Amino acid sequence: MKIYFAGAIRGGRQKVEDYKKMVERFQKHGHTVLTKHVADPNLTVEGSKVTDNEIYVRDTKWLEECDLVFADVTVPSLGVGFEIAYAEKINKKIYAVYEKDKDVSRLILGDTNIEFLPYTCIDDVLDKIDMICTQ
Amino acid sequence: MKIYFAGAIRGGRQKVEDYKKMVERFQKHGHTVLTKHVADPNLTVEGSKVTDNEIYVRDTKWLEECDLVFADVTVPSLGVGFEIAYAEKINKKIYAVYEKDKDVSRLILGDTNIEFLPYTCIDDVLDKIDMICTQ
Repeated sequence: MKIYFAGAIRGGRQKVEDYKKMVERFQKHGHTVLTKHVADPNLTVEGSKVTDNEIYVRDTKWLEECDLVFADVTVPSLGVGFEIAYAEKINKKIYAVYEKDKDVSRLILGDTNIEFLPYTCIDDVLDKIDMICTQ
Repeated sequence: MKIYFAGAIRGGRQKVEDYKKMVERFQKHGHTVLTKHVADPNLTVEGSKVTDNEIYVRDTKWLEECDLVFADVTVPSLGVGFEIAYAEKINKKIYAVYEKDKDVSRLILGDTNIEFLPYTCIDDVLDKIDMICTQ
């Protein structure tokens, strides 16, 4: 499968180590994570030399071609919110995980097109990824 | 016109006084701001007694019926990102304003379907609203 992993970049990098574990778990199952750079602790908020529009064109193309979107919505992020609505509008399967005690957008929590997993520890998320990959 | 104003709620309320000025400026021109609660300083992050799904149904209905979306993207917000992509996919006119020194999502900055206005003071935004309303 091709996975579109969504996590905050400019919104804040405090969860990057968890993003890394999630991406690596998908990869362990032999799947391709199109957006693996999101989980790279060395990614700077400035990113590479690609232009903003090149990012838009690349990411929306990846959204079109992915088999599912897997988003960590713990950290408020314009990009992640954008990716979720975009994916929904083109009928992609969407999973969204978040730390249980965090205030996630109620608009997004109310979206029945998304399958949510509130988690208390990263292992809950990794188990969920195992389940998705062995379905 | 019916305006869908988008601003951060759970993402952070530090810009609410500016949201209020923007919404009031649209109203001064006689337009209806469907989401005027976003600019209410008394709105709590818990919101009212409506359920998350009622918020989703209400907000997506408003997105369908609005004439334009006007978003302040200064504060990272899942909801605002979601609203922008949703609006784009149903071909709504989208304006996005943000404080010049803030790191806005590059995915969103690269979206040529959005008309951006980086601003240094709120008056720049109010002038832009005057322009939109007198076009």
